Amino acid sequence: MTTDMAIADTAPLFDCGLIIGCGLIGGSLGHGLVHHRVLRRVLGYDASASHADIALSKGFIDEIAPSLEAAAARADVIILAVPVGRSAELVKQLGQCARDNAVIVDTGSVKQLFALQCVEDLPPPLGKRAIPCHPIAGHVSAGPQHADRALMAGRPMIMTPGPDADPDAVERVAQMWRRIGFDILEMSAQEHDAVYADLSHMPHVVAFTLMRHIGSRGIKAATLKLLAGNAFKDMTHHAGQNAGMWRDIFRGNRQEICRSLAGFRQSLDELEHAINSEDEEHLEHLLVQLQQARLNAW
Amino acid sequence: MTTDMAIADTAPLFDCGLIIGCGLIGGSLGHGLVHHRVLRRVLGYDASASHADIALSKGFIDEIAPSLEAAAARADVIILAVPVGRSAELVKQLGQCARDNAVIVDTGSVKQLFALQCVEDLPPPLGKRAIPCHPIAGHVSAGPQHADRALMAGRPMIMTPGPDADPDAVERVAQMWRRIGFDILEMSAQEHDAVYADLSHMPHVVAFTLMRHIGSRGIKAATLKLLAGNAFKDMTHHAGQNAGMWRDIFRGNRQEICRSLAGFRQSLDELEHAINSEDEEHLEHLLVQLQQARLNAW
Repeated sequence: MTTDMAIADTAPLFDCGLIIGCGLIGGSLGHGLVHHRVLRRVLGYDASASHADIALSKGFIDEIAPSLEAAAARADVIILAVPVGRSAELVKQLGQCARDNAVIVDTGSVKQLFALQCVEDLPPPLGKRAIPCHPIAGHVSAGPQHADRALMAGRPMIMTPGPDADPDAVERVAQMWRRIGFDILEMSAQEHDAVYADLSHMPHVVAFTLMRHIGSRGIKAATLKLLAGNAFKDMTHHAGQNAGMWRDIFRGNRQEICRSLAGFRQSLDELEHAINSEDEEHLEHLLVQLQQARLNAW
Repeated sequence: MTTDMAIADTAPLFDCGLIIGCGLIGGSLGHGLVHHRVLRRVLGYDASASHADIALSKGFIDEIAPSLEAAAARADVIILAVPVGRSAELVKQLGQCARDNAVIVDTGSVKQLFALQCVEDLPPPLGKRAIPCHPIAGHVSAGPQHADRALMAGRPMIMTPGPDADPDAVERVAQMWRRIGFDILEMSAQEHDAVYADLSHMPHVVAFTLMRHIGSRGIKAATLKLLAGNAFKDMTHHAGQNAGMWRDIFRGNRQEICRSLAGFRQSLDELEHAINSEDEEHLEHLLVQLQQARLNAW
């Protein structure tokens, strides 16, 4: 019994995997999957030939897929590691070319959208084996040159299987992620999208808003660089990247983002009220409490 | 003539200086003033004996002042390097004990407040030689142990002398700052406070607001640390520090901060509108433009 389990823990979970998108996330996942031999064979597909070449040369994939169709015909697990805005079209294509028994996972940061795409564009049996996932791991820089399986060690992998999901597919996907170092967190897609609107998407809207405000005040880049301190620089850092990716995330999760923005505005009103209140202790108490909350987290 | 000018450029500008507050800013200014011998003698005063001891042992001051009164009686230039909330009381004290011919400068990030305090609590002749200043130099960590004259090299020193300021005092203060590495930027106190509401104070309100929003959503520290990405961490970093200092700045510049918040809210509405618009290109165009503005600055 013990021996069987030991074998089961190291035997490949899937025969052939296809990673679509060989950037930072796809490359890091591939690195772990190849290293731990979680799949017998890992194919990589990327619209950018140089990304695929780097992934192959670094050993993150075993083989570059010549075409999506040819690779999908061989794969029993397909991992989408592409920007959120690219998944709709890929799900449509996979609906045409994926094997009947394939398992499909994604890695985007909007989960209800991917779930809906699968319902709309995959044949129902395949749709039940489409498991939305979101790895909470990253790096300040993008691209396969920064990919590393170490990024995933002990980090959460959120899985949001729907009520109709195939339990066997869910379990095998969870095992696949655990074997490359992730801790699994299961929640509903709705819950995920609400939490990430608060933790990531809305704050990114705020970062872009700070830049917009400065622009509307007519403050130019040179003045900004000369006069702004670290706070403004740190708070807008994430508005300096991936405008296209954020457009897709903002549109893909707009309902939750607008809900989060409404809450943010209420909190802003509270802060402003405290700043204007004659009760100095109230403002101090509030700021000390918020400072402590930040210190408790990091 | 050349020789005279060379002597003039290196001769002490003031006989005796008193730095009140020997932390990061006071220590760095002292380091430069002692190193370049801009003053014949630099006294340091700090409510914290350990800050004064560190400043003395690092050679940032020549002597620890035993009391504010005794030191003020000797000083012909007095530099306030204390949190904004401490300056009101100090200006009152200096109104009683500073020499008639002293020059007084501060280094806080709210300028109309300091100017008003000087008008209210200094005898008029002394008030004309009180020059509000704001060094745009800092460090992620506070305290004299991080102080260094190198922090000031090529950084702006904003000076906001009022219309009645003594031109000789303004000129000597500007020379003092230039000799320790600053570039001088002159503007009105009103202009300064408006710019810094936009560049620093309002963004800090936003950082505290992000923490408030997360708290109101019931998200605890452990969840935040586990699930939040770098954006949230970077954007709230500055809410994890100096709650007391920010209370004083928020209250000290509340009029300009509220004006800035009104503009920020307008920009937030614009972003939200673009996210909800059916015109996808409008959102993309806006985000790309803001991303470019950020890249142009840093």
